[in-house]
Amino acid sequence: MSAVELLKKAVEFDEAGRHMEAMKLYEEGAEGLATIAKNESNAAAKTHYETKVREYRDRAKILKEKYVRMSSKGEIKDKIHIVEDSMGHSYQSLFGKYLNDVVEEITVEEPYLREHFQLTNLVMFCELAVTSCRNLKFINVTTCPTEGVDQIDAFKQLKDSLKRTRGINLSVEFSKTTHDRQIILSNGYIIKIGRGLNYFKRAEKYSLGIYNFDFRECRETNVDIFFCPENIK
Amino acid sequence: MSAVELLKKAVEFDEAGRHMEAMKLYEEGAEGLATIAKNESNAAAKTHYETKVREYRDRAKILKEKYVRMSSKGEIKDKIHIVEDSMGHSYQSLFGKYLNDVVEEITVEEPYLREHFQLTNLVMFCELAVTSCRNLKFINVTTCPTEGVDQIDAFKQLKDSLKRTRGINLSVEFSKTTHDRQIILSNGYIIKIGRGLNYFKRAEKYSLGIYNFDFRECRETNVDIFFCPENIK
Repeated sequence: MSAVELLKKAVEFDEAGRHMEAMKLYEEGAEGLATIAKNESNAAAKTHYETKVREYRDRAKILKEKYVRMSSKGEIKDKIHIVEDSMGHSYQSLFGKYLNDVVEEITVEEPYLREHFQLTNLVMFCELAVTSCRNLKFINVTTCPTEGVDQIDAFKQLKDSLKRTRGINLSVEFSKTTHDRQIILSNGYIIKIGRGLNYFKRAEKYSLGIYNFDFRECRETNVDIFFCPENIK
Repeated sequence: MSAVELLKKAVEFDEAGRHMEAMKLYEEGAEGLATIAKNESNAAAKTHYETKVREYRDRAKILKEKYVRMSSKGEIKDKIHIVEDSMGHSYQSLFGKYLNDVVEEITVEEPYLREHFQLTNLVMFCELAVTSCRNLKFINVTTCPTEGVDQIDAFKQLKDSLKRTRGINLSVEFSKTTHDRQIILSNGYIIKIGRGLNYFKRAEKYSLGIYNFDFRECRETNVDIFFCPENIK
């Protein structure tokens, strides 16, 4: 995409409330436009471009600051310690009460979405989100890329399914450096699980727990739930 | 097992409320005892055995009549038509409200529990039953036998899991002639689904619906729910 196309897309996403994606597009687009400004011989055009570059960079900065604030600050609402081998910690039991009709956008940062069981955990999370948040419009996932083709196919299937079933947009961003795990809800809640979405032990093929994860034994982890009023969109 | 052992077991099951199993043990045991009576040369002993045979057969008959009454009569409480390709018909959505703390015993008659997806449907049913019926003690399944070893392994895993997790006893009876599908709850409700437990279409590997069956498309079928007050144990 050209700088102009990137910036058009950035404005479009910004207006639609897809702030994280808009931020990255503003940055990329402003970078391209800065190069154009540098090579521009007409002084008036050069000044015009430079002004626009500043404007877009400022907007990207605001969105970035908001995002950093969203993910770092906030009042602690709950702390849960999941004991090794304990049960009763499905996503519904653990944080289902924070998923409600006010939520329009969810950001999931989860580095490990490579293996089948990790990808199906994300699907299970989406099932809960779709069921609990009747006004949900966007799910944004940031994860580490992997060589396997299954990951790409899995995201495509899930994206199609979310769109078809409830008109929800799934966007996936790959980042080699992402590490922290958190789920950011647009109603102001942030859910941080030490092990991310993947804290369940494997169930036998025909045991209780193949569908209802309250019957799954868990791996030890800590859960912190924050509330950031300034984070509400 | 000898006739005496069968009859001892029958009395034990009868007292524990496992009536269906007791009925069959009474019949088998009485059959064995009748042969013993026939071959007995001592007249007093012969009369004693014959009296006992009559008593056990009478008890089996009472239990059988009760069972036939349970599965055939009753006031219709609900009729639901599931339209081909419609969604929102998980077991929870369809009949979850009839599974409550009054239920101590559930009988599932489902001829087709052979393939993986059929066996996991039974596991899903058990997950719901265990979650909804806090006083559940027995789950009795009647199904057609199959050549595959998977069926036996599946029932063993499920039996162990139910026992370990909640102390619930699963008993499975194989019958080559079973055909009708029904779920009999000891609170008086009977759920009859035309296609039995297996009315869900396959989901894609990473689509909504792999865990929450309200997102699964269904095959067309009719559901009748009866209430039989005389059926309450």
